[in-house]
Amino acid sequence: VRIAVDLLGGDHAPAVVVDGAQQACGADSDLELVLVGPRPAADEPTAVHRDGWSDRVSFLDAERGVDMSAPAADGADPRTSIGTAMLALAAGRVDAVVSAGSSGATVAAAVVAVGRLSGLRRPALAAILPTLAGSLVLLDVGAGMQVKPVDLVQHAALGTAYARLAAGIESPRIGLLSVGSEPGKGDKLRRAADTSLRAVPWTDSTYVGPVEGHDVVTGGRANVIVTDGFTGNVLLKALEAAMAASSSYPHAAVPRGATLLGVAGTVVVCHGAASGADVASGVALAARLVRSDVVGRLARRASAARARAWLAEVST
Amino acid sequence: VRIAVDLLGGDHAPAVVVDGAQQACGADSDLELVLVGPRPAADEPTAVHRDGWSDRVSFLDAERGVDMSAPAADGADPRTSIGTAMLALAAGRVDAVVSAGSSGATVAAAVVAVGRLSGLRRPALAAILPTLAGSLVLLDVGAGMQVKPVDLVQHAALGTAYARLAAGIESPRIGLLSVGSEPGKGDKLRRAADTSLRAVPWTDSTYVGPVEGHDVVTGGRANVIVTDGFTGNVLLKALEAAMAASSSYPHAAVPRGATLLGVAGTVVVCHGAASGADVASGVALAARLVRSDVVGRLARRASAARARAWLAEVST
Repeated sequence: VRIAVDLLGGDHAPAVVVDGAQQACGADSDLELVLVGPRPAADEPTAVHRDGWSDRVSFLDAERGVDMSAPAADGADPRTSIGTAMLALAAGRVDAVVSAGSSGATVAAAVVAVGRLSGLRRPALAAILPTLAGSLVLLDVGAGMQVKPVDLVQHAALGTAYARLAAGIESPRIGLLSVGSEPGKGDKLRRAADTSLRAVPWTDSTYVGPVEGHDVVTGGRANVIVTDGFTGNVLLKALEAAMAASSSYPHAAVPRGATLLGVAGTVVVCHGAASGADVASGVALAARLVRSDVVGRLARRASAARARAWLAEVST
Repeated sequence: VRIAVDLLGGDHAPAVVVDGAQQACGADSDLELVLVGPRPAADEPTAVHRDGWSDRVSFLDAERGVDMSAPAADGADPRTSIGTAMLALAAGRVDAVVSAGSSGATVAAAVVAVGRLSGLRRPALAAILPTLAGSLVLLDVGAGMQVKPVDLVQHAALGTAYARLAAGIESPRIGLLSVGSEPGKGDKLRRAADTSLRAVPWTDSTYVGPVEGHDVVTGGRANVIVTDGFTGNVLLKALEAAMAASSSYPHAAVPRGATLLGVAGTVVVCHGAASGADVASGVALAARLVRSDVVGRLARRASAARARAWLAEVST
């Protein structure tokens, strides 16, 4: 498995990226990494590590990073480290891309270089969260800020396929994140999405209706929870901080990265504030997804689910 | 202090409301409570408690409750328990109203019966949260689902006044909840609100810019955090569940109710799933707000802050 890692992605890049790459190589002897970025950025931190540095790490030159204040579309520029990494993925030179940089730029780069799954309007970032009742898939956690009801329906289809393939959830129960469990609650987006989600003839999964913030923590009502990327991002970061602040928070070992669902390649996004261990966890997640061919199998499963969702959407 | 309590508000009403009223009376010997609802609803659970029941509790008859699936406007119907309670507040027969019922219905009833503060577009529900760095005011946590940038600016003004008067925060730092700390991040609403918030000539408080989900937990960057009622409600319920799931979560004793800011009366909303202790905590919060004349002082402070915010809004 060959994974490209964005050397300039994240608040503490490139140092934590180099650290994370080294940790990931140490933990997985069948891994090859390609660090993508300007040659000087790679040289300085890696010089420190050179003695213990693995010959399973190579470098791919790119001109510059994406500034955190730049528009997302800048990620699609082939001169950027994330743009270069995605082109390597599209060309089959690597099996996956991992970045702790701007998620908007990573999504833009992925959509332009490797493309969306057929019929999908928008990709979504999916996180696996620990709950009192087992793992839960939360999506979107930051790929799309302005979404329509059809996006939430398509993401529910992607999320159930991902839950089954990557989180071992055999019979996903889908919940729509809202402010009450009654159908009339929430904003216009949630009310319309609830109607559409009810109309989908789900197979091997169930739509349980609107769920609330506490259901993301308890996991009792649903284990695939869909929401817009704004709400999901705010919620994920708050829960991560709550877990970190509490030694007794009931968390299992969950991956410290979110998977971009709906593009024709394996892409994992780490937190901007990722540590070396977080980057290593994201790389390990990407390797696991590649080895189980999750993206390929998801594309095949999701096309049927999307067709059903699309039929339901146009008929309501 | 005389407080009206909605006998039919909440998932477990009227039993937990009666329980909460009794706990509140036991804890505060200067409190008088008026339970509002249909006479039979009051009789059954109170019969159990009659022996220990305080003569500081009276009853106000109302025909029916608001069904959780009814539209919010139903709360303004004077035949409902919340509508009757708000009319008693408007008439000066009680000093405050506490309800664990539908927050939409409570907001509608308050706006119709007691009215909004002059110039305010929408009231907001404000919660006080424990953080690693002290108390934090989060608003809106559920009053308004569809908001405009001007609402977030007005809520920041209300929130800073409330932080000072009710949470003892002397120099509030205002943050706009978003998905990154850079101005360009987030959806259209956040980008426009960020521009407006920067243009306000804040006095005795500071706008620190966009903040992220983890800042609500750490409290390090801001202690008044504004967001739309959808995001705030989802986030508050998730954090409450995270605190409950963790014995070591660093929470101080914070009130278990949110205060409705921007109406001309003291109104506290408890969680729909409130326990008796939660209702008692909401009643205690209402009593404290009445005794410190928080709503009256907030109206006087907020009018100046709102005028500044309004000027900034129209000039950008």
